[in-house]
Amino acid sequence: MTRMEELKRTAARRRLDDIMVFGEANIRALTGIDCDSACLTAEAVYTDFRYAAMIRRTVPDFKVRDIRRLKLKGRKIGYESSMPHGRFLRLQKSMPQAEFVDIEDDIRTLRMVKTPEEQEAIRAAERLNVEIWNEAKGIFRAGMTEREMARAVKRLMIERGDGEAFETIVCVGANAAECHHRPDDTVWNGREPVLVDMGVKLGGVCSDLTRNIVPKSVRGLYRKVYALVEAANRAAIAAVRPGMTAAKLDKVARDIIEKGGFGKCFGHSLGHGVGYEIHESPTVSRRGKTVLEPGMVFTVEPGIYLEGNLGVRIEDLVLVTEDGCEVLS
Amino acid sequence: MTRMEELKRTAARRRLDDIMVFGEANIRALTGIDCDSACLTAEAVYTDFRYAAMIRRTVPDFKVRDIRRLKLKGRKIGYESSMPHGRFLRLQKSMPQAEFVDIEDDIRTLRMVKTPEEQEAIRAAERLNVEIWNEAKGIFRAGMTEREMARAVKRLMIERGDGEAFETIVCVGANAAECHHRPDDTVWNGREPVLVDMGVKLGGVCSDLTRNIVPKSVRGLYRKVYALVEAANRAAIAAVRPGMTAAKLDKVARDIIEKGGFGKCFGHSLGHGVGYEIHESPTVSRRGKTVLEPGMVFTVEPGIYLEGNLGVRIEDLVLVTEDGCEVLS
Repeated sequence: MTRMEELKRTAARRRLDDIMVFGEANIRALTGIDCDSACLTAEAVYTDFRYAAMIRRTVPDFKVRDIRRLKLKGRKIGYESSMPHGRFLRLQKSMPQAEFVDIEDDIRTLRMVKTPEEQEAIRAAERLNVEIWNEAKGIFRAGMTEREMARAVKRLMIERGDGEAFETIVCVGANAAECHHRPDDTVWNGREPVLVDMGVKLGGVCSDLTRNIVPKSVRGLYRKVYALVEAANRAAIAAVRPGMTAAKLDKVARDIIEKGGFGKCFGHSLGHGVGYEIHESPTVSRRGKTVLEPGMVFTVEPGIYLEGNLGVRIEDLVLVTEDGCEVLS
Repeated sequence: MTRMEELKRTAARRRLDDIMVFGEANIRALTGIDCDSACLTAEAVYTDFRYAAMIRRTVPDFKVRDIRRLKLKGRKIGYESSMPHGRFLRLQKSMPQAEFVDIEDDIRTLRMVKTPEEQEAIRAAERLNVEIWNEAKGIFRAGMTEREMARAVKRLMIERGDGEAFETIVCVGANAAECHHRPDDTVWNGREPVLVDMGVKLGGVCSDLTRNIVPKSVRGLYRKVYALVEAANRAAIAAVRPGMTAAKLDKVARDIIEKGGFGKCFGHSLGHGVGYEIHESPTVSRRGKTVLEPGMVFTVEPGIYLEGNLGVRIEDLVLVTEDGCEVLS
């Protein structure tokens, strides 16, 4: 059964008369259509003149209609709560008969389990991401700024893939304590650690990877923290099984970091899904209720951050299999 | 008076007790804060631990609070209707006393007139954009695909600026009839026209430019269409005056194209504002009510598209001055 068929089944179960899907990645995951200006309903795609021909080619079994005439007659209509509030108000006004039912989570749930084609696309993207990382490492030199190192990564991503899935993060030394540091003019002296969080886009999907350069001269606390984060990363990867909850997986890593005495320094969740978007379901956090299933793809990225001092994050991308997981990175 | 002071004055006039601004570009334009995860209110910035230190540094006169504790007490609260509907529902639930008033347009209006610093930043970005275009042209060769040409542009944007403000558009021959064509594997034979729509980011702001390569061998209809689009572009640029409406400016270009017999082939508006975002106010369209003022920055981009045959768009970026406009491209 295709995702679209599943969604229609969900809609029938919830007694919806129709659905409206505007989100680009949602439309892509449901139909394969690659268009940032369309509304997918149960039987038709509403779009503007610029995209009509392309959509007719992609989904010949859908009617293609003018988006300016989007006015569904159903009484109960599924919609995405991620849409801008202003658009929701306009839709509500133009369809006063309708009761709108949030189906955002239903669609996100359908997207969690990747098709074999999507799995292969993400595998290829992450493989390229690792290659680019290995190449970039060879380019990094003492004396370069974070910005210059980020630029080297970006250049490779454009030459060999479809560019960045998100702004590349490069942190020298203590800057790594900020988990969303923007590359700045900090110069790498070659003796401090460097954290790089990067993801190349390829074939419409994203990848994600965090690695750390640790020069031999780095000792003491950093080494201890690194070993702990690495142990948490490895233990979590080894623990992945279909049937377990995301929260239980998060706990595997968190317990190790807490026992090591750094529980308060791991302020984010263990991971997030990756696919057409860089952040998808499932959320692998303390409260993650998702039960893992074969075909899900998510990051495993424990981290420890000591403000003004150091930061370590080790991030791999995994695909859940029948009896564990495949590490894509 | 700063934009923030102006916004507070607007809020007082509309009898608002407080405001909530989440939009990254809105926060940037109002305060200079560069953060994608914050809520700006009249007196405080709510954010998470990752950004608190940076925000304290940028706006020492604002209180910095934990975004998890965002719960305003006012009865009338200004908000942005561009926020996701789901977020609006959660805010409404957590502040049941409040009536929410849309201030999106007020903020967008404040952002239309650029500060001298913003003008200089956009001028520099567009200057670089033109340089990159000139360099890219020298790299383009017969035998290259659209994708390869786009890649050459992107690479220059990363090397010399902060990357793309939007996905670079490269259209060979008839592909230019689709105004939002994505670069594909179409090969340029060196004898067809090539349309390139590109914008580099620099210093936090965007730029925008559309140019066409017209080989000498191109004749007939294309030449006629090109001359008409060029005439429309030049006439509109020459007509820009503070005090006129955006609709009147759109009409200057549209009249020329209509008189030339291609009115139905110019399906979009004449232009859009450019700043921290690639699409800002004002919208320069048939219905654009904005009265032009010195300091506004927008594109002038008439186009003619003949499906399956050809497309021409000529786009410049202009800054409204006291007595006309400065062409930034």
